[in-house]
Amino acid sequence: MHLFNTKNALQTFLESLRKGRKIGFVPTMGALHEGHLSLLKKSLLENDFTVLSIFVNPTQFNNLEDLHNYPRTLENDLKLVREISSNIIVYAPSVEDIYEGKMQSFHYDFDGLEFQMEGKHRPGHFDGVGTIVKKLFEIVLPQNAYFGEKDFQQLQIVKKLVEKHRLNVTIIGCPIHRESNGLAMSSRNERLSEKARKEAAIIFQTLTEAKQFFQTHTVQETTTWVESIFNSNPNFTLEYFTLADEQTLVSIDEKIASQKYRGFIAVFIENIRLIDNLPFY
Amino acid sequence: MHLFNTKNALQTFLESLRKGRKIGFVPTMGALHEGHLSLLKKSLLENDFTVLSIFVNPTQFNNLEDLHNYPRTLENDLKLVREISSNIIVYAPSVEDIYEGKMQSFHYDFDGLEFQMEGKHRPGHFDGVGTIVKKLFEIVLPQNAYFGEKDFQQLQIVKKLVEKHRLNVTIIGCPIHRESNGLAMSSRNERLSEKARKEAAIIFQTLTEAKQFFQTHTVQETTTWVESIFNSNPNFTLEYFTLADEQTLVSIDEKIASQKYRGFIAVFIENIRLIDNLPFY
Repeated sequence: MHLFNTKNALQTFLESLRKGRKIGFVPTMGALHEGHLSLLKKSLLENDFTVLSIFVNPTQFNNLEDLHNYPRTLENDLKLVREISSNIIVYAPSVEDIYEGKMQSFHYDFDGLEFQMEGKHRPGHFDGVGTIVKKLFEIVLPQNAYFGEKDFQQLQIVKKLVEKHRLNVTIIGCPIHRESNGLAMSSRNERLSEKARKEAAIIFQTLTEAKQFFQTHTVQETTTWVESIFNSNPNFTLEYFTLADEQTLVSIDEKIASQKYRGFIAVFIENIRLIDNLPFY
Repeated sequence: MHLFNTKNALQTFLESLRKGRKIGFVPTMGALHEGHLSLLKKSLLENDFTVLSIFVNPTQFNNLEDLHNYPRTLENDLKLVREISSNIIVYAPSVEDIYEGKMQSFHYDFDGLEFQMEGKHRPGHFDGVGTIVKKLFEIVLPQNAYFGEKDFQQLQIVKKLVEKHRLNVTIIGCPIHRESNGLAMSSRNERLSEKARKEAAIIFQTLTEAKQFFQTHTVQETTTWVESIFNSNPNFTLEYFTLADEQTLVSIDEKIASQKYRGFIAVFIENIRLIDNLPFY
């Protein structure tokens, strides 16, 4: 029983009850895998309702072929969702429903986060991400939104978006889900041959070994060592490996004990671009 | 799973989820009995949350002695509430919290309902009822509010209040709860001696018999018969017995087949004023 003796206390409490229903939000581009499902499960635990959006957002693709080839598996996605809970609210809009005839990105200033790593290699990508995430937040008005740490830079950029636009949503980063061989789960993994999917284990394996290596070597030595691994394997093309500050994402030249670094990597295999990252502290 | 393909459909659904929490409201003056508890139970079943207010409202008492003697049993009330559910929200304000230094009624036009029966015999009573009920509705903002039919005129007046002021609340009338001898449950029953409480069974018994009597007699004959019952018993003083239209509460002179009548009665015993009513159709 809740006992109130003043109308102010009562009204404050009732207001919180009325407004207190928490909506959790998991924005995705579909082709759901265990990583997405772990976000959904976390949201279901932490909120009264969970909205899952499934939308392959054209404006965040810098490569039309990549957009065209991005897996679209709605029927299977819905089946996976149903297996988790009958209570999930799925939003699977058309491009028209989202962009209403004006399919373009807004331009965002993410305090420099957008110039690092993925931002360098995928021009316009984070303007597209900012545009779609802001649109979806405004549609769903969630209390909590869940993003995987596989796209660590995206996670930091979404946090910056929320901070700079004072959006009323809490961004929750969730650990990377990995296949049994260590490969970070990604919808793009579906496009790999069975052979490549096995071989791709080398990405996480190299990150893990580089973390060890880094304990007794400099930044430059570690980077050179990672590059040598991939350069000696003809099936892989390394796009970048970098050690960067977790908050600013600025690459480091030398170790500073108080800083938190992550190793970030982007690699092509069978023309598919895969990314991964690992804390180096 | 709920699947939406357009943002409009999604937003409409989410809006209903956010706003969909129903608050039920049971306003009382405390000294809770089974009648009140039945209102609480109904509200718990029909709403997400139930607010019980316990407030002996000074402005609806036309008699200061009656106000002074009105039973105040907060500790026991809370105990009864706890036994029903841990989830009830109790609002037990001070006079100051409600009236903020200006303890006065507003004047209401209830389309004539206020001039009948209790309105005639308790000057100012329904202005006090209207004032406190409107104040409480504005504090609690319930979707549903529950009133017992024991105070049938009050129930009709509250419905009129809601209609005339376009308040966004549904008024739900609930059947009279009776003690095993038929006496309508009332906080005032607590003030009767054991002997009087037994004797008071005659009120409901007379109403029931009058209903039978009315089938073969006129309005005037029935009224005279009821008066004779109480006039012949020195322990009772009949204030009024009247047959009135359920909607308008206007007393009838003769039967009209299509109309719904109720018998309404107010009786003093041991200087305690008791009321009751019964459909005569």
